[in-house]
Amino acid sequence: MSMLYEKNPLLQTTTKIVMMQDLNPYGNLFGGTLMGWMDQVALMLAVRYTRQHCVTAKFSEISFKEPVQLKDMVELLAKIVKVGTTSITIEITAYKLCFRCTEPTLVASATAVFVALNDEGRPEPIIAAPMFEVEN
Amino acid sequence: MSMLYEKNPLLQTTTKIVMMQDLNPYGNLFGGTLMGWMDQVALMLAVRYTRQHCVTAKFSEISFKEPVQLKDMVELLAKIVKVGTTSITIEITAYKLCFRCTEPTLVASATAVFVALNDEGRPEPIIAAPMFEVEN
Amino acid sequence: MSMLYEKNPLLQTTTKIVMMQDLNPYGNLFGGTLMGWMDQVALMLAVRYTRQHCVTAKFSEISFKEPVQLKDMVELLAKIVKVGTTSITIEITAYKLCFRCTEPTLVASATAVFVALNDEGRPEPIIAAPMFEVEN
Amino acid sequence: MSMLYEKNPLLQTTTKIVMMQDLNPYGNLFGGTLMGWMDQVALMLAVRYTRQHCVTAKFSEISFKEPVQLKDMVELLAKIVKVGTTSITIEITAYKLCFRCTEPTLVASATAVFVALNDEGRPEPIIAAPMFEVEN
Amino acid sequence: MSMLYEKNPLLQTTTKIVMMQDLNPYGNLFGGTLMGWMDQVALMLAVRYTRQHCVTAKFSEISFKEPVQLKDMVELLAKIVKVGTTSITIEITAYKLCFRCTEPTLVASATAVFVALNDEGRPEPIIAAPMFEVEN
Amino acid sequence: MSMLYEKNPLLQTTTKIVMMQDLNPYGNLFGGTLMGWMDQVALMLAVRYTRQHCVTAKFSEISFKEPVQLKDMVELLAKIVKVGTTSITIEITAYKLCFRCTEPTLVASATAVFVALNDEGRPEPIIAAPMFEVEN
Repeated sequence: MSMLYEKNPLLQTTTKIVMMQDLNPYGNLFGGTLMGWMDQVALMLAVRYTRQHCVTAKFSEISFKEPVQLKDMVELLAKIVKVGTTSITIEITAYKLCFRCTEPTLVASATAVFVALNDEGRPEPIIAAPMFEVEN
Repeated sequence: MSMLYEKNPLLQTTTKIVMMQDLNPYGNLFGGTLMGWMDQVALMLAVRYTRQHCVTAKFSEISFKEPVQLKDMVELLAKIVKVGTTSITIEITAYKLCFRCTEPTLVASATAVFVALNDEGRPEPIIAAPMFEVEN
Repeated sequence: MSMLYEKNPLLQTTTKIVMMQDLNPYGNLFGGTLMGWMDQVALMLAVRYTRQHCVTAKFSEISFKEPVQLKDMVELLAKIVKVGTTSITIEITAYKLCFRCTEPTLVASATAVFVALNDEGRPEPIIAAPMFEVEN
Repeated sequence: MSMLYEKNPLLQTTTKIVMMQDLNPYGNLFGGTLMGWMDQVALMLAVRYTRQHCVTAKFSEISFKEPVQLKDMVELLAKIVKVGTTSITIEITAYKLCFRCTEPTLVASATAVFVALNDEGRPEPIIAAPMFEVEN
Repeated sequence: MSMLYEKNPLLQTTTKIVMMQDLNPYGNLFGGTLMGWMDQVALMLAVRYTRQHCVTAKFSEISFKEPVQLKDMVELLAKIVKVGTTSITIEITAYKLCFRCTEPTLVASATAVFVALNDEGRPEPIIAAPMFEVEN
Repeated sequence: MSMLYEKNPLLQTTTKIVMMQDLNPYGNLFGGTLMGWMDQVALMLAVRYTRQHCVTAKFSEISFKEPVQLKDMVELLAKIVKVGTTSITIEITAYKLCFRCTEPTLVASATAVFVALNDEGRPEPIIAAPMFEVEN
């Protein structure tokens, strides 16, 4: 049985293990790579929720609180916090589980806004009716 | 709060959205890419469970039941099915959630065996005590 | 003169040198990368033999017999072992030539089954007439 | 003669042509790819200015004002706006030059803060003396 | 304000920081990677100058004068040296700015010839009128 | 039995199938990608012949005679043409086998010179004694 059924439709997770191609030249996870992962988990949630072509319209400020290194894992968690008529707002949190650690620690969090595009690439309304505002 | 705490220590999921670089030249998800994703989710579970350097020792037969295409998502689910003194056995299942579909469908499943290596790259015992055999 | 002419139409080889992006986080060739290479050499043979869009339908069990490391080369050898009306069966063998070694050693072997798809992505018969069964 | 000498030490540019692997599944430049490019041009400026190992500490809000597509070029411009004792602040602007257009248009802008790390990965002071605050 | 306006229409630069995936297995920048970067900066200039689909027709001899390593930056400079009726000739120079160095040094230079293709992939005349021959 | 034994020690081949990430933005194989493949097959031969760390010192002029497209295969053939005391000269030829064609056609050829580096990255003599000059 897929876990997709068991999961809240307002949540999406994905997990990465840090490989060499994800590092900056000094041996830490490259900030741009992590931002790309955060954008990707949120995109998956936006698409799963709307079944529309979604693109990132805005990305909030991000602070990188902890270096991440080779062998560490990063769990990315996206949560829908607002569904509007023309956009959908998603909160993204990245946790690190460092190799041989037992406690995940917060690495970064951000909020992203997605819009839906029609087949000509023009914005179209969000098809999923605005449902609610979830507590953060 | 990280979902790592809420999740069963014997399970690991990750989700991918199919991008152009994942396709074979005919526009379907490349079989080798999917096998790589299946190996990666299982590796993450093996490492999370053992905190050791784990490498794939064996991968079972895999049938690819459904083509997967650009825009589809693939949810990968790994489950520990056996922990031995020198190896750990993990079942991996891949589901497709095709774009604009609502039902996930099974794409492929396999069982992988991982062993742990010490710092010299030689096999070492699995540190986590063999716990049980989970029902499939 | 191309070697394509000199080679048996039932064989395809390719060779890789292990680069950093091919490694797992512990410094060995990632199992999923090797499976992708094995699938790719077999795909090339299936396509060369049929001139059709071929996709992987099944991949047999694989055991990874030897770790492979940065600087090592991997020679991949695919051989058609059976041509049916709807599928083609290919045996794949991977040899390692470790840096500064002189003897290649077997790393992994598997058998893959490919089917041909028409332009709508539906299975179509293998155009090459089933010719024979080659000894393994 | 290198242009490095002719350029202002407070500026760094780089230019990208959008290739298939940079796209999201719907055919536009993936937001995460663009954020990675923005982080990279700023990283190069931070390193050129300090000769230290620099990592991203903070990335401001970003709005994506225009879709970018295959064949378009993206010019990225980084400018040092503040040099502190422990961090360096860089403004990044991304312009699109769409294929067959003649006018570049603004795609996104952001401000990033970098810190320097010593060989143990701990923060160290910025070696370049704080020089001035440039007008934005 | 974009630097595209301030720059000579006969010049194009781009800058790279050497990441792990750019290295050969022995820890130096892979020659093939550098040739790809040189081809790419010249392609961008050819396209910017012609607004046509340009492809590489010829690449001159290249000598690699200096090894380049992780953390080094490479500045690539392309310059149009001749515009003919059917092709455009571009000189490419690559400079290294090694980490903690202050002087850029020449790494490699080459001359590339590009032709324009129409939508059927057949050669078509260069639209930009041949303007002049720049001194090398 | 590995084909490494059956092959001439002065030859190395590898074969690629053109995937989307190998294309330029106009749908042809990117020239820089092909140069990288040519460099890689020659590097493998240089290393196999010398068991030393080899790097590219020089690459001859290359003409690209034919466009290569998605689904085409490229066979790369490297041949040692001269072994000196400090360098090794390798001729590289690339053939295209276009999808649904039966005749390979020449795409490009070049000659590359490799030198060996010691563990400090300084040039060292070629260990394999200069053997002969092979007819081209």
